[in-house]
Amino acid sequence: MAVEFMDRRNLDFVLYELLGAEDLTDRLPYQDHSRDTFDAILDVAEQIAREKFHNHHVELDACEPVIVDGKVRILPEVKEALCAYAEAGFFAAHHSAEQGGVQLPSVVSLGCHIWFEAANISTTAYIMLTKAAANVIAAFGSSEQKKLYLPPMLDGRFFGTMVLTEPQAGSSLGDIATMAEPTPEGHYLIRGNKIFISAGEHELSENIVHLVLARIKGAPPGVKGLSLFIVPRYRMNPNGSPGEENDVALAGLIHKMGYRGTTSTMLNFGENGQCRGYLLGEPNQGLVCMFQMMNEARIHVGVGAAMLGYAGYLYSLDYARNRPQGRPIGHKDPDSRQVPLMEHPDIRRMLLLQKAYVEGAFALGFYAARLLDEEKTAAEENDRRDAGLLLDILTPLIKAWPSEFCLEANSQAIQVLGGYGYTRDYPVEQYYRSNRLNAIHEGANGIQALDLLGRKVGLRDGRAFDLLMGEIGKTAEEASGEESLRDFSMELRQALEAVRETTNTMMTEGSGKGAERLLANASSYMTMTGHLVIAWTWLRQALVAQRKLGHANEADRDFYRGKLQACRFFFRWELPKVHYQSRILAGLDETCLEMQEAWF
Amino acid sequence: MAVEFMDRRNLDFVLYELLGAEDLTDRLPYQDHSRDTFDAILDVAEQIAREKFHNHHVELDACEPVIVDGKVRILPEVKEALCAYAEAGFFAAHHSAEQGGVQLPSVVSLGCHIWFEAANISTTAYIMLTKAAANVIAAFGSSEQKKLYLPPMLDGRFFGTMVLTEPQAGSSLGDIATMAEPTPEGHYLIRGNKIFISAGEHELSENIVHLVLARIKGAPPGVKGLSLFIVPRYRMNPNGSPGEENDVALAGLIHKMGYRGTTSTMLNFGENGQCRGYLLGEPNQGLVCMFQMMNEARIHVGVGAAMLGYAGYLYSLDYARNRPQGRPIGHKDPDSRQVPLMEHPDIRRMLLLQKAYVEGAFALGFYAARLLDEEKTAAEENDRRDAGLLLDILTPLIKAWPSEFCLEANSQAIQVLGGYGYTRDYPVEQYYRSNRLNAIHEGANGIQALDLLGRKVGLRDGRAFDLLMGEIGKTAEEASGEESLRDFSMELRQALEAVRETTNTMMTEGSGKGAERLLANASSYMTMTGHLVIAWTWLRQALVAQRKLGHANEADRDFYRGKLQACRFFFRWELPKVHYQSRILAGLDETCLEMQEAWF
Repeated sequence: MAVEFMDRRNLDFVLYELLGAEDLTDRLPYQDHSRDTFDAILDVAEQIAREKFHNHHVELDACEPVIVDGKVRILPEVKEALCAYAEAGFFAAHHSAEQGGVQLPSVVSLGCHIWFEAANISTTAYIMLTKAAANVIAAFGSSEQKKLYLPPMLDGRFFGTMVLTEPQAGSSLGDIATMAEPTPEGHYLIRGNKIFISAGEHELSENIVHLVLARIKGAPPGVKGLSLFIVPRYRMNPNGSPGEENDVALAGLIHKMGYRGTTSTMLNFGENGQCRGYLLGEPNQGLVCMFQMMNEARIHVGVGAAMLGYAGYLYSLDYARNRPQGRPIGHKDPDSRQVPLMEHPDIRRMLLLQKAYVEGAFALGFYAARLLDEEKTAAEENDRRDAGLLLDILTPLIKAWPSEFCLEANSQAIQVLGGYGYTRDYPVEQYYRSNRLNAIHEGANGIQALDLLGRKVGLRDGRAFDLLMGEIGKTAEEASGEESLRDFSMELRQALEAVRETTNTMMTEGSGKGAERLLANASSYMTMTGHLVIAWTWLRQALVAQRKLGHANEADRDFYRGKLQACRFFFRWELPKVHYQSRILAGLDETCLEMQEAWF
Repeated sequence: MAVEFMDRRNLDFVLYELLGAEDLTDRLPYQDHSRDTFDAILDVAEQIAREKFHNHHVELDACEPVIVDGKVRILPEVKEALCAYAEAGFFAAHHSAEQGGVQLPSVVSLGCHIWFEAANISTTAYIMLTKAAANVIAAFGSSEQKKLYLPPMLDGRFFGTMVLTEPQAGSSLGDIATMAEPTPEGHYLIRGNKIFISAGEHELSENIVHLVLARIKGAPPGVKGLSLFIVPRYRMNPNGSPGEENDVALAGLIHKMGYRGTTSTMLNFGENGQCRGYLLGEPNQGLVCMFQMMNEARIHVGVGAAMLGYAGYLYSLDYARNRPQGRPIGHKDPDSRQVPLMEHPDIRRMLLLQKAYVEGAFALGFYAARLLDEEKTAAEENDRRDAGLLLDILTPLIKAWPSEFCLEANSQAIQVLGGYGYTRDYPVEQYYRSNRLNAIHEGANGIQALDLLGRKVGLRDGRAFDLLMGEIGKTAEEASGEESLRDFSMELRQALEAVRETTNTMMTEGSGKGAERLLANASSYMTMTGHLVIAWTWLRQALVAQRKLGHANEADRDFYRGKLQACRFFFRWELPKVHYQSRILAGLDETCLEMQEAWF
């Protein structure tokens, strides 16, 4: 029997017990739904993920896409999987009925999506990009653009991409040099070279809808002169069918360490001066439009990192239960049978660490999805605005924390399997290789850190930060009422105070000593704050578990005890890091700032 | 021009300025040597490493060994490299003149070896295994065995292996089931299946000398019944030439995540009852003999991890100097030219972290080599014994710390390169993949932790531990005399006291609460102690740098300032971890011990 790659019990816990997804059915947009409809849709997602996605994730890693006769050849199972996904209606599921969807709330939509990510991250990337691109067109497109592109994207007949990076412009988006020249016909002629374009070329869909950042001729330099364009791989016929080639040339495939099933491409736009692009949104507002996609993608990067971590955790858990090796300390009779790896406390440490990291990141990702739902459907305007602010400040953490710590979880999964884990006969090394991308793409973690400390912390006079600290404080307050969680409550409050004070000191000192000195500490600041936030998600989970423990059946009792023990692990071994980091950060350390090139 | 993979200036610093290798030439065994002869040999190593090893490290990773017509086919450059190495006399260099060597001290021998490891870890593994196997035969072999096997191994015509692991017995060596049946002719018939045997089969040498752990028929169960056998791939003719096959069958090659150029094999010994093994050392003393090899291999694993870290560090350093990207904070004119990555403080952080980790681990590895020299040639018996004790307690740290933290350094190297670093067009991802093995082989890090806390700390009534703490204290004392290092001196002393007290508490509590509860904390204990030891190597380096700074030329001043800043980085950002860990450890945390299987 295949090893589990995702835990439905935990999904149900997070969706219904932690985040109360069922309550959403009281709200207008979701009133046709019930827990039953949510569950039925989750069942379908789970089944398709098992049967159509998980079946080829190993082979896809071993047989990465190649160019044959100028076309990208990908394992046929990828197309089968994406067709099954499309046929089940998942591309449109979060859209309204008139758009062919079933108006799924974000939390439930994410509850479906994670099955595919855990089963096969490379195949699922085509989906994520398509849905995110469609969301941008839905938000910023003209009615004509929506009519032309949305139906085939929501049907899964056209796929989407996000096209930012150029060979000379990665993190530095302001240096994008791709040009867009207006024509009397209304479209633009696009010319430029792009790199690291995921899903940039393939034969999986009838058309590829590139969303391209480029500069309209004469626009200002830097990010303020960037506009966003729809650039279809094949020009669109008036009837909506794909027509002739649009002068988008595949310059090469990029061969990566992991995530191998998702093509990463170099694309040349307009080599022959014939590449037509269609302005999406306003001129010079490209970054604003792209950031809607980017923010969505960043949350998905974090959740994807959590799911790779999850799949590795469950694999190593299964292995530890079944692999006999050695004997307990003090029971060394060499004639006795070997015990399962699980019996060794250090193996349990590696498993508990994985559980604490991946289920912490998982809960955070779903909390973000719930915030999306609140932002859209909360009754009070204040609540909608607050949800948006919380999302703003959490997005860099949701992207960066899991990509760092769930990678570490994958490393521990390898370690549990020992020598076997290092071979390509077991999937854990593949999870590790794939997960290493997540700290890089959609804004490297260093960029996330600058975003957090340089922009989000000060956002609206610190209102987003205060809101977040307030929410964390509420949980600490709530937990203080539970006898068995009182220590955790106190520790969370102490960490919260440390982060709050450190932040204030840093911002004050930073305004005197300069932004460079402040931001030289951004990465460590992000790690510290991330740990506080994950501890918070753990205490929230522990609260639910503790309250339900008394009247739960045996299986649930074990499940809740696992939650409480993972919370304990995080509070014991991880949360204290906040304090030593806060002490260093409060001084705006300048060790790195002062380091001179010649000294290296 | 190729990017540097190793820094000769730092090697010279560690060898001569930090460890005083030149002093060794006063000692009898090394009296034919001088700094000039050492340097000349290092020059040759550097040159061969550049020309014959570094040239194929990328291709070797891409084209891993395969089986063709029953034989293992490896990139021909591997054989060329190993021939060049053999021709230069490096296999024998640390042996006496009568054995064809030049009696190199261990520190200088290591100074040569690291060039090959940094240039191409996979090709160099064949060397390490051969030298270590020859050392075991030299130490425990009969005069006949030495005569038969040593000359061809020291010539590099025969290669060696270490054959421990079986499919059911990895960390649990006591479960080794391979049998050795005595014959009237004096040899044994070996029968059993082995796995993960590095360099277990190839066509690179005339013969392969397997050192095999097996159980003599009727021997007790567990590790006490293990004996070590010489099992040549081809039986030896009386004239010393390889003869007929010895019934050692290749059952398959193992495909790994990294380290791909070193074959990892499954071997079946005696499938046809014709596999002859020759007892090496005493019966049932196999583990003692093997541990001589194992301890040497463990030090090499740590140093190898440091060298992979080093190569990645230097690559990312070069990249950061040359890749333009973005502009400094506060200089955002988009029309200005982009600055090199190096100008961004967060990039310097990633580089400084790498430097602190890899040069710290590097210095520790060379300190171990110096201890080997002391153990062998110190004038006083006390000093020889102390050197041996220090080596005993440091070996698990030397193996485990670099394999964890220099892997992290490799991850940071990828991050510096961003998207490019994740592609197989740059070598940093390969270093990362290869380095991930080092926490696993030659005793997984969890086993090292048990060795440290369960055996070495209590060794000879804590004498090894006290010695180590004493040495660290001496450095703190010495540094207190240097004005600019006084803070570091104090911080090292505080960390030392924390580790000492925590160790005492743990050992006392452990004897009451049981070994299981003590050892459940072994891994974290090792991390804490490792950080103290690395901080110590940094303060030792800083002392040298500080004293030489005043009268150094400009290039050296930059070099010494780099040392001082890396020391500062480690003390600022890493050493404080000792304190939060010591607080948790002192309570003999039982979070992992209490975690139940059913709760996962």
